[in-house]
Amino acid sequence: MRILKTVPAEDGFFMPAEFAPHSGCIMIFPHRRDSWQNGAYAARKAFAEVIGIISQSEEVTVCARFDDYDSARGMLPERVRVVEMESDDSWARDVAPTFVTNGRELRGIDWGFNAWGGLEDGLYFPWDKDNKMARKLCDLMRVDVYDKRDFVLEGGSIHSDGEGTILTTEACLLSRGRNPALTKEEIEEELKRCLGARKVIWLPSGIYQDETNEHVDNICAFTAPAEVVLAWTDDENDPQYVLSKSCLDVLEHSTDAAGRPIRVHKLPLPAPVTITAEECDGLDDMNGEPTRIPGERLAASYVNFYISNRNVICPQFGDPRDADALRILQELFPDRKVEGVYARDILIGGGNIHCITQQIPAVDNGVHI
Amino acid sequence: MRILKTVPAEDGFFMPAEFAPHSGCIMIFPHRRDSWQNGAYAARKAFAEVIGIISQSEEVTVCARFDDYDSARGMLPERVRVVEMESDDSWARDVAPTFVTNGRELRGIDWGFNAWGGLEDGLYFPWDKDNKMARKLCDLMRVDVYDKRDFVLEGGSIHSDGEGTILTTEACLLSRGRNPALTKEEIEEELKRCLGARKVIWLPSGIYQDETNEHVDNICAFTAPAEVVLAWTDDENDPQYVLSKSCLDVLEHSTDAAGRPIRVHKLPLPAPVTITAEECDGLDDMNGEPTRIPGERLAASYVNFYISNRNVICPQFGDPRDADALRILQELFPDRKVEGVYARDILIGGGNIHCITQQIPAVDNGVHI
Repeated sequence: MRILKTVPAEDGFFMPAEFAPHSGCIMIFPHRRDSWQNGAYAARKAFAEVIGIISQSEEVTVCARFDDYDSARGMLPERVRVVEMESDDSWARDVAPTFVTNGRELRGIDWGFNAWGGLEDGLYFPWDKDNKMARKLCDLMRVDVYDKRDFVLEGGSIHSDGEGTILTTEACLLSRGRNPALTKEEIEEELKRCLGARKVIWLPSGIYQDETNEHVDNICAFTAPAEVVLAWTDDENDPQYVLSKSCLDVLEHSTDAAGRPIRVHKLPLPAPVTITAEECDGLDDMNGEPTRIPGERLAASYVNFYISNRNVICPQFGDPRDADALRILQELFPDRKVEGVYARDILIGGGNIHCITQQIPAVDNGVHI
Repeated sequence: MRILKTVPAEDGFFMPAEFAPHSGCIMIFPHRRDSWQNGAYAARKAFAEVIGIISQSEEVTVCARFDDYDSARGMLPERVRVVEMESDDSWARDVAPTFVTNGRELRGIDWGFNAWGGLEDGLYFPWDKDNKMARKLCDLMRVDVYDKRDFVLEGGSIHSDGEGTILTTEACLLSRGRNPALTKEEIEEELKRCLGARKVIWLPSGIYQDETNEHVDNICAFTAPAEVVLAWTDDENDPQYVLSKSCLDVLEHSTDAAGRPIRVHKLPLPAPVTITAEECDGLDDMNGEPTRIPGERLAASYVNFYISNRNVICPQFGDPRDADALRILQELFPDRKVEGVYARDILIGGGNIHCITQQIPAVDNGVHI
């Protein structure tokens, strides 16, 4: 593995869209007892269900800590690869490499990771194991890696259409805990240079109470070039309303890198999901303090789906709108089968199905994943 | 990765000779402070030199513990892959899978490993991390694995000519600490069934003071079909003499699986190598007891070489016979360049260059290593 200090865009590399073909997917077996109730027992079952679906059409590699390896190997299908790798938590989207390609070769980007805000407003300390994973994964896959550790970014805070357009949120990328020394313009330039993009669409906000400082992948996602889904509520009394409305206003007045207007499909939000006292009781404290309070609203959203080669895997919450979300996505992805996975036990950890996955784009020459 | 309970020989699989083409090599970054003096500082340099040579013609994968990963990555060339994997010690020959092939597909054998004798006369406790590595490596490589954990064997205790003949030692395979419930005939049958062999040549002994119960790979190795090198001393007062002589007697009266007599090339032993007080001082105690005593004779042998695609890498001890060993091997391997590596700092750990490597045979369809 070569460690590259050059600029991906100048090398002819770009980030493909998630709906482009994948050679595989990276995930992490959950373990953190203050993130996942009851020693991650229920989370592991939910992760395994997601892995089971993705692995029907992609080569899935699951990173498991030494202590969890046997448990992961025992729970997952034999077609899934389990590799030993220490981690602080289990969000592959944010700690695995962001992959770029020139169509023939795959490379990874190793961003700085500081647990969504470092000592400013990060979610745990330390985060060194997580921060080492992207480079280790590139080494494992025998792909060269761009050293961007001086720029703090998580994969969940960006979406690419693969045609020059990046979606992100101001709430996250301009947060004090990431790159406070950089201006918005400098951050935009960095995204373009690293992701091979020509245009960045800045949504103001994400999902209410989203503790990642409102990652874009929980509120808005490309479903095709110049088409997005946006998490939506019609309830003007819901604090989410102004957040979603601010994004809609931007999207309706934006064009993509190719000059096309953006077509916005509203994806309804479930009714507010709150954590129960029993669920909180299953979570270990962090530094003597609880990580969740009974009644706390969780950042539930159907937008947090994963697009695999054959499926779209969408979280379900036991809400009447669950079926609506699946139906809308099925219309938008006519070539894939949309599958729902009951994902409350992933949501309790703070994210959802998109957050626990990281796709590996397919390239012409095949890739060792 | 499928876990197979079938019999390799019945599936059409066999163990190729080490001198057949490899697709790669597995090694482990050393760390054990009671095996390697001064926190494995000198051992790491010696391992790195071996890795540097092998990686000129093979894809080398080095397993490093989480705590050692950065150190390994920093010391090794970028063409070498480093993967995170916990281990108890660093002998890839004995804990990595033994690979078998049918010419098109590669599979691993996961033998039972109990640190060279378990609670009977094993060298450390516990050995659970080592015992898990073979299966993890198969998973990493996406090759199916034969579950032979009920049969205790180390890769260093067998050599294959790839044409149906296995070399081993009675001292090791019939030791009380491995498979005491099996007769010699049953063990021989197991070797034939697992390695696709028709004949097992039982040498009586190995190298004096070899704490593996005298692995064959320290005293005798195939250099071609029906040709071996045998570690030899002419000094009849050396306790090694009767050991080497007993092997010579067997070899001179043996034929291989194809009915050919075995041609024996004597490889001189270095003068006895003993550990110094200063070296012992650099070793941590184990359970409060020293692992080596000043003046203790180490099991030095030039036979403990590794045959890579382009080289033969032979230990050197600062002995006048070092050059003789290289010269003899160069004559026996005219198509490879013989390279010497000063290996005292590997020998102190109890083995040598062959012991720290495990080749991955090349197969027609290419292999993800």
